[in-house]
Parts: sequence; C-alpha cells; structure tokens
Amino acid sequence: MRLSSGKLQSFVHGGDVYSAESPLGRWLDFSANINPLGLSESVKKAIMAGIEGLVHYPDPRGKELKQAVSASYHVPEQAVVLGNGAAELFYVYFHTKRPGRVLLPVPSFSEYEKAARSAGAEIRYFYLQEQEDFQLDFARLRSEMAGCHTVVLGNPNNPTGELLERGDVECFVQAAGEAGIDVIVDESFLDFRTDRQLYSVADLAAEYDNLLVISSLTKAFAIPGLRLGYGVATERLVRELEFNKDTWNVNSLAQAAGIAALGDDGYRVRTLAFIKQNVPYMYESLGKLEGLKVYEPSVNFVLLNIAGCGMESWQLAEKMRQKGVLIRDCSNYPGLDTRFVRVAVRGMAENRLMLQALKECLEA
Amino acid sequence: MRLSSGKLQSFVHGGDVYSAESPLGRWLDFSANINPLGLSESVKKAIMAGIEGLVHYPDPRGKELKQAVSASYHVPEQAVVLGNGAAELFYVYFHTKRPGRVLLPVPSFSEYEKAARSAGAEIRYFYLQEQEDFQLDFARLRSEMAGCHTVVLGNPNNPTGELLERGDVECFVQAAGEAGIDVIVDESFLDFRTDRQLYSVADLAAEYDNLLVISSLTKAFAIPGLRLGYGVATERLVRELEFNKDTWNVNSLAQAAGIAALGDDGYRVRTLAFIKQNVPYMYESLGKLEGLKVYEPSVNFVLLNIAGCGMESWQLAEKMRQKGVLIRDCSNYPGLDTRFVRVAVRGMAENRLMLQALKECLEA
Repeated sequence: MRLSSGKLQSFVHGGDVYSAESPLGRWLDFSANINPLGLSESVKKAIMAGIEGLVHYPDPRGKELKQAVSASYHVPEQAVVLGNGAAELFYVYFHTKRPGRVLLPVPSFSEYEKAARSAGAEIRYFYLQEQEDFQLDFARLRSEMAGCHTVVLGNPNNPTGELLERGDVECFVQAAGEAGIDVIVDESFLDFRTDRQLYSVADLAAEYDNLLVISSLTKAFAIPGLRLGYGVATERLVRELEFNKDTWNVNSLAQAAGIAALGDDGYRVRTLAFIKQNVPYMYESLGKLEGLKVYEPSVNFVLLNIAGCGMESWQLAEKMRQKGVLIRDCSNYPGLDTRFVRVAVRGMAENRLMLQALKECLEA
Repeated sequence: MRLSSGKLQSFVHGGDVYSAESPLGRWLDFSANINPLGLSESVKKAIMAGIEGLVHYPDPRGKELKQAVSASYHVPEQAVVLGNGAAELFYVYFHTKRPGRVLLPVPSFSEYEKAARSAGAEIRYFYLQEQEDFQLDFARLRSEMAGCHTVVLGNPNNPTGELLERGDVECFVQAAGEAGIDVIVDESFLDFRTDRQLYSVADLAAEYDNLLVISSLTKAFAIPGLRLGYGVATERLVRELEFNKDTWNVNSLAQAAGIAALGDDGYRVRTLAFIKQNVPYMYESLGKLEGLKVYEPSVNFVLLNIAGCGMESWQLAEKMRQKGVLIRDCSNYPGLDTRFVRVAVRGMAENRLMLQALKECLEA
C-alpha cells in the first residue's frame, strides 16, 4: 500500500488541462492551486499595454519588478532574484550549488526533487509521519540532517498544507548554518494568508548566508501561464544565482504583470476575504462526506485520505475526470500512496459542483 | 589595442532600452537584431486570445508548438526541445552535460561563454582572424579541438555575420563526433535568409548523437520580450535536456505566439522581401561613409570597423546615443576591440535616420 519507487520518476503535476477534452466543455480544475479570482483587471491591463513592447528584450535586471517585490515583502532590493516561475529558481539554485546530498521532508512539491536530481544530487527522504498528520518534527529533522548539503522546506507544505512557525524555521536555519547546510524555504502559498508575518522568513534571508526563500507570484495572482517567481537571499548568493541563470529569464509581460499585481491592494484584500469565506466552507463540507479523512487546510488546497471509500486515488481521479472535474491524484508523492488526493479551493459555485461530483463518486 | 581580459566578465548586450530616456522620446534601437517588421497581426491576436488562459499552467510538453516547429523546419517532433528563448537552451545544455572544456570560435554571441562558465566549463578561445575577415577555418578548428568537449558555432555568426555552408558543418560534426566532441550550432538568424537550406543542419540533428542545433524564434518574429527558442537533437538528448530544464519553462503566450508565427506565411514572405531590399541598401550606404570598414552582412546586422574615423567604439556609441540611436559597442567581444561596432538593419526610414546620425558623428 505504501509508495512504490517506480512512481518517483513520473513527476506528474496537477493543472494539466491540455491532455483531452472535458465532458463539460471546460475542465473544473481542482488539481492546480491557483487563485480562483482569476486575473485582476490591473494585471490584464498591464499585459495588454505590454504587448507592443514585446519587440524589445525584457529588462535583464528586472529593476522595476525587484523594487516592487522589495516594497511589498520588506526585503532589500539587492536581496531579490527573479525567476521564470518559482520552479525555475530551484533549478538555478541546484545547478549553481550542486549539493551532493539533499534532504527532503516528504511528501512535498515534486519539483524540489526533480530539480535537485537534474543537478546530480542524491536525494534523502525525511518521511513526515502520517500518524503525526505529517507535521514536521524539527528535532528529528536536525538529528537526520548530518551529511546533507541542502534541506528544502515548504511553508506551507504542498500537498499537506502544514504550516511552520517563523521562530521554528529561524532556529532550524541557525542550526543548519552551524552544520554548513543550506536551507531553502518555499513560501509560494503564504500570500493566501492574512498572518504571513507569523510564518515568513523572507525578511531574514538577506541576513543568513545559508537561507534562500523562494516564492511564486503565479499562484496568488493567477498567472501560472505567464511564469513568475522570486527568491530572497544574501546579496552574494543573489549574484551567484544571477550569474547562473539565463540572462532574460523573466519575460516582459511577466515583469509588467508582477508590478501591477503587487500594486493591486484591492485584489489582495479580495483574495484574503475569499479565502476566509471559502476555505472553511470547503473543509466543513468535505468533513461531512463519508469515507474521507480531511486534513485541515492552511491555504487554498486540501489533502484528503480516501481509504475509507474503497477506491484508489487514480480511480477517484478518473471518475471525477469523467464528470469534468480534475483533482490531484497524490499517489506519486513520495511518502503518500493511493489513499491520497488533493483538491483546490475555488469559488463557491465551483466548489459546490466539485463537492456534488465527489459525493456522487463516493456513493457510486 | 586587442582585447583586455577584464572586459570578458561584463557580458553587456544590445537591446537595453531601459537604462535611460532617449533625447528623441524613443530609442532608435540598432543595437539589437530584431525583425523590424515588428509583431505580426496573427501573433498579436494569438497573444490577446491567450490572456484569459494565463490562469492555467502552460502545456509542459508544448505539444502544439513542437508540432508547428516540426512542420516548419522538417524535423521530427520528438527531436524538438523548447526553450524560454534560445539563450536558455545553452544554459540547459551546459548544466546537463557539464563539459569540462569548451572551444569557442570568437568573436561570437557572449551567452555561449556565460552559459558554459556558469556550468563550470573552462573556455578555450579559437580566434577568428581579422585578416581573414573572421571566416572560420575548419581545418585549423579541427586541429585545435583536441581536449575539448563541446564546440559552439554561430551560423551565421554574431556579430561577424559569417555564414557556414551546410556541407562544411556536417563534415565538422562528423569529425568532432569521432573525437567524442559535441557541436552546438546556433542558427538563430537563418530565418532571415531565403536559402536557409544551404546552411541549416537542423534536419541532421536527429541523426548525429553529438549535434545540437539551437534556434531563436524571437528574432525573426520580433518577440524577444516574450522569449522563445527551440533546439533540435536526437530523441535521447532531447529527453536529457527536458529532464534538466524547468518543467514550465515556456510560458503560454510564447507558445501561442510561436504557433501563430510559424503559421504566418505572409509575414515570412514580407520579412524576406524586406531583408532583400534593406540589407543591400544598408551595406552600400555604409560603404559610402568615410573611415569605415564594412563587413558584408549575411542577415539583418552589419559589423563595422571604425578605426579610420579616429574614435573608439564606446565614444561612437555614446555620440550616437546622444542622438537617440543605440548601436552595439563590440569592444567586449573576445577577439574584437574598441575598433568595432555592430548595427542592425531596420526599416528604410529608420535606416536613413541612423545613417544620417552616423554621418554626423563621423564628420564631427
């Protein structure tokens, strides 16, 4: 029932709306964790306004966008490196540093492993324990980190949703630093929380030599198609990463969209209000369905254990697909298996359609 | 007078329209080699139509775009790898293969060196000889390639404009293969020629284990801001490169734009007619100016030796800049020095403005 290692190489993601036609005419995509408010008007305008300028190269320094990131997240401009999505920055880090051995608390986002492997790293899994609801035990992590060069923490972790407190992360970064170990913290989902300051260590990344905070702007601002992420680190590491990345990695429209998005306070307020309304509704509604164990969400996605419903994850995903709803089969995550799926939280109308479809699948 | 090695690390490019304001209100950008026809209507439409879809991830396989590349350039779909610009593919290749020593005929596009260095390669320069008008001597190149793992050829070469014939390139690839050496051929400017089949080896890349052909779609279709390139290689190398690149490296709008561009025969015809009209005009007009040695252009840019005009390249570039015209100071190219600048070929009206400004600078 536990993971078979043959699945590790498959690296299948959610959000694949390209493979086939939906029976509904369009897919209800609960497999990718994107802000369901969609593109903000300001972002759309910025993109439209940027089209004529595509005949020029993007600004290789990304100066204006770096200033916007700096102002929004209270980090020095020189501590910011821009990425063609957060995912690219993992590849850049691993190709730059080429750590021999990487410690990954799992289950976690599969690009950490793919990026590390592509740079030749050996992967050591640190299994988050199901009986502890996949909470990270920092003491145990510290006892197992010897001999590793880099540790990657998701905060909140995808797909479990587990949040790490800022103080705990900082303590760990200090301890890792003393042992000569780098820590990457992926904060790609923290923009979905009103209390991000309780969790984020982005403002510390300019201070700790061994800390790199990576974050996505595509999830919170609903522009995964355009690709945009950033990292925060010491000026020295930023320079190193910039030397190792493609000169024009962030396209002009992504830069323009990012600047507009970070300046759009109204959209951010609406996003947080939306999360406050829909995430508890989804958690509660899922809890009422028979045969599911529902992990408490911290942001816009929910991990489910479907063991009680007599189906395997791929079977449920396929049944849902036949109803036009995409969910994330989590069986290819190391540390999970065919008992787990993940669903995003979307708008009320779509959530109801998804819940209805799920109910029908579980009862069938 | 020859290159000082301190310049090697600067990697300054043309096309930087962000650094300051132009005295004309806009820059006449002759420093970047972009199709002056600008965005085609079909590309613009495809981008506009793609904006709503940015809430989804890009197709990580880029299936439709690969099919379009395959059909346009007569290469198998499985032999195509897509890049976030051609430049990214150099980084991906070097990070994938990590060749110990790379042989670079120079002067050439500086991203070859930057990408190779970022993956730890030692660089060996093969100096194209000024007294031979920077033509590549394949016999000498073969005699100097021992001990190297990869050779990068630009065809045509940037900034010299020198073209390599298909037969010569294939012979060299064979010889390099026997010596266990990879050859990358950068064909990013071949779309500006009607007779590309005399030069391109893209259709051979699926056959030779040691050949990777890289090409840009941003130059010929005027979308450098959006980033788009492709590589052609054996299926095996394509799989390796794809494992080493970021999963979603090509954004959705670039994919849509590429598909539209490759299907727009009218634009391609207009581009070639444009080149036929403007490149000879520019070559001839430059030849009439005193103090210049003009290298014969093969595509949409011209290398100039300005030694006879009593200015250094940065001085001329600065004077032109004061008139609102950007040209490429080539002194930071290994193998060139402060006697060289490069100018793009643009539309007739802009070319005249540039020529007038140049004339004034040379006479002042």
